[in-house]
Amino acid sequence: MTDLVIRNARVMTCDPARPGLGMIDHGALVIAGGKIAWIGDDAEAPSAGYTIDARGRLVTPGLVDCHTHAIFAGDRANEFAMRAAGTPYLEIAAAGGGIHATLEPTRGAADDTLVELTRERIACARANGTTVIEIKSGYDLTNAGELRLLRCIARAAVVAGPRIVPTLLAHLIPADRAVDRDVYVRSICDQLVRAAATERLATSVDVYCDEGAFTLAETRAILTTAKACGLAVRGHVGQFRDLGAAELLGELGARSADHVEQISDDGIAALARAGVVAVMLPGACVQLRLPVPPVDKLRHAGVPLAVATDLNPGSSYSESLPLQLWLATTHYGMTVEEAWLGVTRHAARALGVEAGRLVTGAAGDVVLWKCNDPADVPYHYGANHVDRVWIAGVL
Amino acid sequence: MTDLVIRNARVMTCDPARPGLGMIDHGALVIAGGKIAWIGDDAEAPSAGYTIDARGRLVTPGLVDCHTHAIFAGDRANEFAMRAAGTPYLEIAAAGGGIHATLEPTRGAADDTLVELTRERIACARANGTTVIEIKSGYDLTNAGELRLLRCIARAAVVAGPRIVPTLLAHLIPADRAVDRDVYVRSICDQLVRAAATERLATSVDVYCDEGAFTLAETRAILTTAKACGLAVRGHVGQFRDLGAAELLGELGARSADHVEQISDDGIAALARAGVVAVMLPGACVQLRLPVPPVDKLRHAGVPLAVATDLNPGSSYSESLPLQLWLATTHYGMTVEEAWLGVTRHAARALGVEAGRLVTGAAGDVVLWKCNDPADVPYHYGANHVDRVWIAGVL
Repeated sequence: MTDLVIRNARVMTCDPARPGLGMIDHGALVIAGGKIAWIGDDAEAPSAGYTIDARGRLVTPGLVDCHTHAIFAGDRANEFAMRAAGTPYLEIAAAGGGIHATLEPTRGAADDTLVELTRERIACARANGTTVIEIKSGYDLTNAGELRLLRCIARAAVVAGPRIVPTLLAHLIPADRAVDRDVYVRSICDQLVRAAATERLATSVDVYCDEGAFTLAETRAILTTAKACGLAVRGHVGQFRDLGAAELLGELGARSADHVEQISDDGIAALARAGVVAVMLPGACVQLRLPVPPVDKLRHAGVPLAVATDLNPGSSYSESLPLQLWLATTHYGMTVEEAWLGVTRHAARALGVEAGRLVTGAAGDVVLWKCNDPADVPYHYGANHVDRVWIAGVL
Repeated sequence: MTDLVIRNARVMTCDPARPGLGMIDHGALVIAGGKIAWIGDDAEAPSAGYTIDARGRLVTPGLVDCHTHAIFAGDRANEFAMRAAGTPYLEIAAAGGGIHATLEPTRGAADDTLVELTRERIACARANGTTVIEIKSGYDLTNAGELRLLRCIARAAVVAGPRIVPTLLAHLIPADRAVDRDVYVRSICDQLVRAAATERLATSVDVYCDEGAFTLAETRAILTTAKACGLAVRGHVGQFRDLGAAELLGELGARSADHVEQISDDGIAALARAGVVAVMLPGACVQLRLPVPPVDKLRHAGVPLAVATDLNPGSSYSESLPLQLWLATTHYGMTVEEAWLGVTRHAARALGVEAGRLVTGAAGDVVLWKCNDPADVPYHYGANHVDRVWIAGVL
């Protein structure tokens, strides 16, 4: 493969050794062997290789979507319409809606179908600039079924497609296990988490700790097992009610605490102390008409902020991180710099992967945009500004 | 031109003679001579002509964007970034931001530049399904300059492009006319409005009646002159503060009252009595972090609701009506049906044009979508579901 040289670009490196977004206003970079071989001022760029003139436009790291539920079958457009019409959630659930409307079609779908559906979604994500995507299991709720979903997630990877980071999600207690929820939680710990670790099907375990899902004690049991198995941990925290999960995630040294619409000052302090990334999911927040998380408090406490799509069939069916940039910088009151770091370097940190920055030796995951300025992407919203996406140097 | 036959479609007619969105689940339509020549059940469709199999997918009227400021030069991405960073508006304005950052580049741009910039924006709107677009003047603020903008708006129309509905907007009192604002307002009435009417450069006049813009008395003076000149009237109402403009617009039989974040019960009753369309602009509302308009009160009073992009360089730089459908059905709590009527039939009503419905004799402005259900478009948000757009039967 010939070296690729991108010249005359406004490069956002997200290199922590540089201030802010690490901009190189008249920059260039070289991708060789799938990695960034050189990056710096255009005037000093090597001339060998296939050269692209960016004509002053923006070049960024490939985007990192650090929170998705991209593997599912079935459609909940009808439920979306019911909710827009004001039907209460419990009534929708009673009419077969809610997560159950995804569980049944997902359980019933063949492996190939699930793989194909997931591939369509990650292709759409790639078209919007995503080069690394976390995908959680969680729409089966049986141990065997969750392991099947993780195997399908692994199969969904395509050559030159987005890199997939698989997460085992303990989503909620299925209705038929409410009577023996202790047994169910124990089997997640003793069987599911251990199997996912042994088979290397997930790099982290996530627990939905909220009203109607897992209690704080159950969350602790699952996540401490995960840690003992050598897996990273993360959690859905306080989307509806603060059960104290942020404090737990801080104590456990989690990778991320996600949603955090409801979080106490102690919870924020715990995240800050442990360097846990708080993942903002503004699309789901708007769609469910939830209060905005305390962004200002998180920022002042020094909690690293990421921004993700929450791609899922219930509360946020979108593959577009650029649109989340608009929501983050408007509805959430994040700065343009915070939002961009949130879909690059900080999102990569939430996943524990080397990505989201353009530095020598990093993967050649690069987006060339049609616009010139980092602010243009959220500013001119609802349009796709992506011109080209390279993953490991491949278009 | 051969007749175009679209078969095997899920047709949303928006025909007021049918209930709701006027769905024909197994529908077909024929476009001949640029107009809908036949529409009905697929089983009864005529077979002559060039035939497209929609494969059960959704077919709707072309979308109508009834509120845009699509003619401007200059870029305010930097101001967007400042606002995201929490800089107060007055500080941004003092630093040369706000509307002044658009006035100067627009005044300085050649006619051809303005026409070209506007054409780029309406091409993007078309790609997102828009076939009729209202465009307001308003970024010059001198009488000669506003007339120039209206002439450029007329020139921005392209063959087979979106139909343009031009509006003269009295946007605000320029800083250098604060000392003689009475004279300025009188010249708008006596010269600008009359010239726009005589030269047929606008079909309606819009006044921004709000704190920092025109007072209620000034609004009355301008709009009554407009009516006397045979022009329709509309208003920017209560985006920041309710000055009583809704009551005035009801009294004058206006086409639309736009924004209405702040509106009294009397104002709502006045709109309902006169059949004035209330235009929801959720993108600008989210971006400026304003309160949500009283959708429920408007609905119960029987006020027709439209939804538009508010495409403008300051508070909502987006050409995408489908994205506004998502905001309308989530952040604004509108039903899927209300939102769709808001970008079709009700938007056309706000503009006083025959559009936004698929009935025999109507223009052949049609969108074929990649999805099957009206709810899919807002539900799967941030993706472009438009497959093909015909305007007067032309792709």
